[in-house]
Amino acid sequence: MNAPIYPKIAVIGCGLIGASVILAARAAGAVSQVAVADLSAHVRERVQALGFADVVTADAAEACQNADLVIFAVPVMAMAEAARACAPGLKPGATVSDVGSVKSAVSEALAKALPESCFIIPGHPIAGTEQSGPDAGFAELFHHRWVILTPQQRTDAPYLAATERLTDFWTALKSNVELMDERHHDLVLAVTSHLPHLIAYNIVGTAADLEGVTRGEVMKYSAGGFRDFTRIAASDPTMWRDVFLANKDAVLEVLGRFTEDLQALSRAIRWAEGDKLFELFTRTREIRRGIIAAGQESAAPNFGRDQRVSVEGPDTKSQ
Amino acid sequence: MNAPIYPKIAVIGCGLIGASVILAARAAGAVSQVAVADLSAHVRERVQALGFADVVTADAAEACQNADLVIFAVPVMAMAEAARACAPGLKPGATVSDVGSVKSAVSEALAKALPESCFIIPGHPIAGTEQSGPDAGFAELFHHRWVILTPQQRTDAPYLAATERLTDFWTALKSNVELMDERHHDLVLAVTSHLPHLIAYNIVGTAADLEGVTRGEVMKYSAGGFRDFTRIAASDPTMWRDVFLANKDAVLEVLGRFTEDLQALSRAIRWAEGDKLFELFTRTREIRRGIIAAGQESAAPNFGRDQRVSVEGPDTKSQ
Repeated sequence: MNAPIYPKIAVIGCGLIGASVILAARAAGAVSQVAVADLSAHVRERVQALGFADVVTADAAEACQNADLVIFAVPVMAMAEAARACAPGLKPGATVSDVGSVKSAVSEALAKALPESCFIIPGHPIAGTEQSGPDAGFAELFHHRWVILTPQQRTDAPYLAATERLTDFWTALKSNVELMDERHHDLVLAVTSHLPHLIAYNIVGTAADLEGVTRGEVMKYSAGGFRDFTRIAASDPTMWRDVFLANKDAVLEVLGRFTEDLQALSRAIRWAEGDKLFELFTRTREIRRGIIAAGQESAAPNFGRDQRVSVEGPDTKSQ
Repeated sequence: MNAPIYPKIAVIGCGLIGASVILAARAAGAVSQVAVADLSAHVRERVQALGFADVVTADAAEACQNADLVIFAVPVMAMAEAARACAPGLKPGATVSDVGSVKSAVSEALAKALPESCFIIPGHPIAGTEQSGPDAGFAELFHHRWVILTPQQRTDAPYLAATERLTDFWTALKSNVELMDERHHDLVLAVTSHLPHLIAYNIVGTAADLEGVTRGEVMKYSAGGFRDFTRIAASDPTMWRDVFLANKDAVLEVLGRFTEDLQALSRAIRWAEGDKLFELFTRTREIRRGIIAAGQESAAPNFGRDQRVSVEGPDTKSQ
């Protein structure tokens, strides 16, 4: 086996993603020593029991001692505090990254809290399940998934070398790495992830409170399309609260556009403008075909952990 | 094998659902003879090739000759025309049903077009995939799925007996049958199926037209939640146009409620009211757990035809 890419890594916050990073890095031989810091006694207990970390502590600075790579895997709004807790323990020249779904706010928080002697390279693996906690982690989570890194505006050779090393790390974990401007990341993810989650949370809330239809009925007949939304709306509340707070501007921008479009669609239904509906529905079908053609759909099954059956209302009838 | 429940059935419109009804009924021994009418020459050709029908014709009245059960499996707004075409061929005492996602409008259209000598019992199997056409049909589609029947306000014994026989038919196809008032059906489905589809169509349209983010990027990073919506928004455009036109009132009602809730959510983000977001997100998670507990999620895998992997953004991190 080759030498590990990072002899020692510290993972700060060990939920589904933190645990999966460790399991994937160990499976790839990309690390030798792993330290975990988590403020939750329950999580620390589970990590001890799972046995994938050499050090398990509540003290972030202690976990960072001598670490070559520190990865923050806490909710976005907890990054600043976690970074402050780590700062005293960081060795000069350490690379610091994260897995948060928002990059501008996190980048700013890390830069503010951490010493200049470390290399801050924010990151975001676009992978996950609706499960929570270290027990939900698995080594194959990042296989063939995109990891977006949003490096700072630095062009000095050591920083570029650190970015390359972090790219090698994620590549060893079988991810596809993309470098991106942090503000662009936040807009792209506002569309492809944050808005879908917001809409899913909203529709499930609306359905739960609707007079004339019981919750039991909503659940019973959820196979008609609703069920897909409930899965998304089951995602971790703390994580997602933080995403919307930290990416407010981009989320409100795409939400404004969504609302405009929805008003037009509502008007088309009210005025029975079937052609307009048909035109939109045909266009969206093409987009789906584009995703399938691009191989984004069938790629990299997560080993059956998240497989399920999707059944909607009767979809297609012809005469 | 027992005697068939209906010696002869006629299926008018043979897409995914029509074909699946035939395959399921044959597998259950619930029918002996099957006639198919479809206006599309291509569909008729495919049905001939698939070999599951005894008669394949463009003439709906011909297909209905001597049929004990006639099932309309055409888009909702095509039901009236299909019923008019069948009327001359219907035998007195035949049961007439359908598989449309809207029941009030269909019930009215059938009652207007068909002779009083037949028993009109509208129906809606809550099952399907995003595939189209007779080749997509399969015998297990309705296993453990709900089929809602919305009988007319008749209490005469022959009508009640016909309803019981149709219930037996769907039960033989391994469906769970529920009787419901047609207006209530349309409200329940507006929430659990029609609104989710409308929202999915809308969000995919919004994403496709957004400046600053290319379609390529939307597709590339669609694993963050968006991809689930694209699958729903790939459903048959004609069918769904008809659903929204035929169930306009109920759809606009729940859409109005959805929009109100979305405005409140938007305001909570704008004013950084994290508690309100957290409260909603926690509540929606409970609803998901209710669905899983009720067994609506894992029940009746459709034999792998529609399985897929769902991967979102990193969902859960703790510290």
